[in-house]
Amino acid sequence: MNRRMVLNTLGKIALANAALLLLPTIVSAIYMEKCIWAFLITIGITILLGLGLTFLSRPGTKIIYAKEGFVIVTYAWLIMAGIGALPFVISGEIPSYIDAFFEMVSGFTTTGASILTDVESMSHGLLFWRSFSHWIGGMGVLVFVMAVVPNITDRSIHILRAEMPGPEVGKLRPKARDTAKILYLIYIVLTVIQIILLLAGGMPLFESIVHTFGTAGTGGFGVKANSIAGYSPYLQWVIAIFMLIFGINFNLYYLLLVGKIKAVFKSTELWTYIGIVVVSVGVIVANVFSLYDGFWETLRMSTFQVSSIISTTGFATTDFDLWPGLSKTILLLLMIIGACAGSTAGGLKVSRVVILTKAVFRELKKMLHPRSVRVVKMEGKSVDEQILSSVTTYFAIYMICTLCIFLLISFEPFSIETNLSATLACFNNIGPGLDAVGPTASYAEYSGFSKILLSVAMLLGRLEIYPLILGLNPLAWKKR
Amino acid sequence: MNRRMVLNTLGKIALANAALLLLPTIVSAIYMEKCIWAFLITIGITILLGLGLTFLSRPGTKIIYAKEGFVIVTYAWLIMAGIGALPFVISGEIPSYIDAFFEMVSGFTTTGASILTDVESMSHGLLFWRSFSHWIGGMGVLVFVMAVVPNITDRSIHILRAEMPGPEVGKLRPKARDTAKILYLIYIVLTVIQIILLLAGGMPLFESIVHTFGTAGTGGFGVKANSIAGYSPYLQWVIAIFMLIFGINFNLYYLLLVGKIKAVFKSTELWTYIGIVVVSVGVIVANVFSLYDGFWETLRMSTFQVSSIISTTGFATTDFDLWPGLSKTILLLLMIIGACAGSTAGGLKVSRVVILTKAVFRELKKMLHPRSVRVVKMEGKSVDEQILSSVTTYFAIYMICTLCIFLLISFEPFSIETNLSATLACFNNIGPGLDAVGPTASYAEYSGFSKILLSVAMLLGRLEIYPLILGLNPLAWKKR
Repeated sequence: MNRRMVLNTLGKIALANAALLLLPTIVSAIYMEKCIWAFLITIGITILLGLGLTFLSRPGTKIIYAKEGFVIVTYAWLIMAGIGALPFVISGEIPSYIDAFFEMVSGFTTTGASILTDVESMSHGLLFWRSFSHWIGGMGVLVFVMAVVPNITDRSIHILRAEMPGPEVGKLRPKARDTAKILYLIYIVLTVIQIILLLAGGMPLFESIVHTFGTAGTGGFGVKANSIAGYSPYLQWVIAIFMLIFGINFNLYYLLLVGKIKAVFKSTELWTYIGIVVVSVGVIVANVFSLYDGFWETLRMSTFQVSSIISTTGFATTDFDLWPGLSKTILLLLMIIGACAGSTAGGLKVSRVVILTKAVFRELKKMLHPRSVRVVKMEGKSVDEQILSSVTTYFAIYMICTLCIFLLISFEPFSIETNLSATLACFNNIGPGLDAVGPTASYAEYSGFSKILLSVAMLLGRLEIYPLILGLNPLAWKKR
Repeated sequence: MNRRMVLNTLGKIALANAALLLLPTIVSAIYMEKCIWAFLITIGITILLGLGLTFLSRPGTKIIYAKEGFVIVTYAWLIMAGIGALPFVISGEIPSYIDAFFEMVSGFTTTGASILTDVESMSHGLLFWRSFSHWIGGMGVLVFVMAVVPNITDRSIHILRAEMPGPEVGKLRPKARDTAKILYLIYIVLTVIQIILLLAGGMPLFESIVHTFGTAGTGGFGVKANSIAGYSPYLQWVIAIFMLIFGINFNLYYLLLVGKIKAVFKSTELWTYIGIVVVSVGVIVANVFSLYDGFWETLRMSTFQVSSIISTTGFATTDFDLWPGLSKTILLLLMIIGACAGSTAGGLKVSRVVILTKAVFRELKKMLHPRSVRVVKMEGKSVDEQILSSVTTYFAIYMICTLCIFLLISFEPFSIETNLSATLACFNNIGPGLDAVGPTASYAEYSGFSKILLSVAMLLGRLEIYPLILGLNPLAWKKR
């Protein structure tokens, strides 16, 4: 492996992280909070680490291969969360490092699972940092670094591929760096629009910003004990709709930008996504009608929760753990499906579900006519057999991971419903689950072992399994 | 489609069913029970149906294709269960036809899920019939018909393939009929050995026979309210070991018979199966140690329950619903894995799990070295890419079916644990689940809709999904 290049890139990522930490430092300066010292100390440590790595490992060659891509992505995310946890521990607001690490992995992976039992007592600076990590992690830590650091490495598509969710990376431009820039541009514009809409509805500036970070990254960290339940119906609708918007493949926004509107409306994934949302909302409205005050409130509650879960955000406006079994089961299934590939959301991704379903139908037809040759089509093009096989294999490893995490977390003395939903909620980067980890509860009761296990689950989910497994493999460091 | 041939074969199957019904008729004659009339009336109806179908549709050509195979298998199983339910309704012992149909689908598919709330009040004749259906369904209704009815159809491998579980049908002999005969011979010998061992342990003849039927078919219907809990440790060990034996691929017994002992000991599937059993028993022993009286009782309880669940039988010697979460989760995962392909058991099958795992590892290696070509090996031979792709696709449709059934059953007002375990227990042909469908409870509380849904789930599980979907498709009846 090109070790020098890897360590050098990791150093640059640490430096980028130090730069990002300036923002919450400014916030704590504005609110004149003590936690500013925690940020400054962390920035100092991070700069030392970053400079050390960068200078001690000047790369001979900038070329990287798939293997280097996986290693860089894996360790970049571990460094980001590992460093990001420090301000919480140094300030004493989260005394345990494991807890703080869990919280930051949850932040960067845009999960939103929290160990905080009293979020409203936290300082503004740390709350901002927590939510800001959603925003960074949503589009990808490395995509960000690639967009801002010039000429970081040749063949950087390997990094983009390892970090971007979905079965295929749509290269918008021939150069990976240009693609990263366009994606971040769209991301920033949508973020600004949402902040303005929330301000217009009377939400204070600080809350508008952090909730937009949580929505944009489809993360779900909030600043209130009851999440979004205390805000006006207008604000709830804005957030519900933006959660759905950030769950759509960003390539479609690019197509909109360059005027290819027809192509957008032909997207199978988009229509399937909308279809799933509409049907789920419909069934849940009928199922929970008696719990709320009239049709519009029921519709708002159902839409918000469905948007929140399918986009794997995890905000809540009601305690859906009290919903009847049918609605809860729908939410569990939405957790697995997730939103569109190429969005900031987690889960299996709608496009994979569509390809899987088509592969199944082809297999059925093949059983009747064994000698016929059929291709699976998606978005008007035929899907390569290689991709088809990697999607079905991905589904296999996805389910195997789910079952293994579920098995390991079962050492905890909680109900099967708690442990299963915790597994799904963390692995698919949603956040809140059901029962003891429901939207009004937290993950504080889990043991240290389980918190580390669930942190791994969140990273597996965000990075789509392979990079983490390959990157953590010690053999990957072997010299060529 | 060759309609005449299909209807003609279905007629012959109905006649075979009438012949099979003679056995429980004799049992009720011995016990001088009123239900003998119910059996005689059913036999009369069945003979009329069988003769009608056979004479009205004399086939022009005996050749069948894959499609005919699926249709025959699907309707054969529906006819068997549909007719098999009649004696219960006619005798009045199960007044509702839906309940009786559920019970017989559960019998033939070797599930063992029951709607009976007081099994000990049933007559001997009907209890015998219920358990006998396990024995018939275990090796396959059509495999049986093929073994006894001479020259039923050309190319009958299509039937064998549609009915036999596992990713590949190992043709032991060039002629499908010879294969069917050998399989039944092994089946009968093992059955007789178990009956003798149970008799030797002091179990009464009637109970020895029905429990052996339940074990051999990996079904699980018993005659006692507490299943096997009331019998001596010796009898429990015999049943535990025979459940495991009937979960092994029957091809291995054939290899033993013809002296290829080395090949048996090289079987990856066998060793994986044994490994899963040993590890599961080990963990559960440690987990439930405090609940039982000493090591040997704990070992017996753990081994029996693990054998029962992994072989998808469903007998119980203890209420495992009271076990701690970890043990219950292990049982849920064993439900999904199931036993070996080519056995009488249900579930995904160990060989598929092995192939899936290997496919996942190959994908991991492929990500590091994209241009390398690797083959997946199984039992010393390389697995064809076609089979590999059909195994991963099968896994996808298997999980999609599981999730769909779980979603539909969630209309019931039971806990998520109940509905999820009912789904897994029926779809994988185990029988008892957890919570409200635990080993001491029954499926009586479910609505008619859910009983039909679960009946479909049991058939999907037993026939491995494709035949049922293709056979029930009305388009299949279209003339060529």
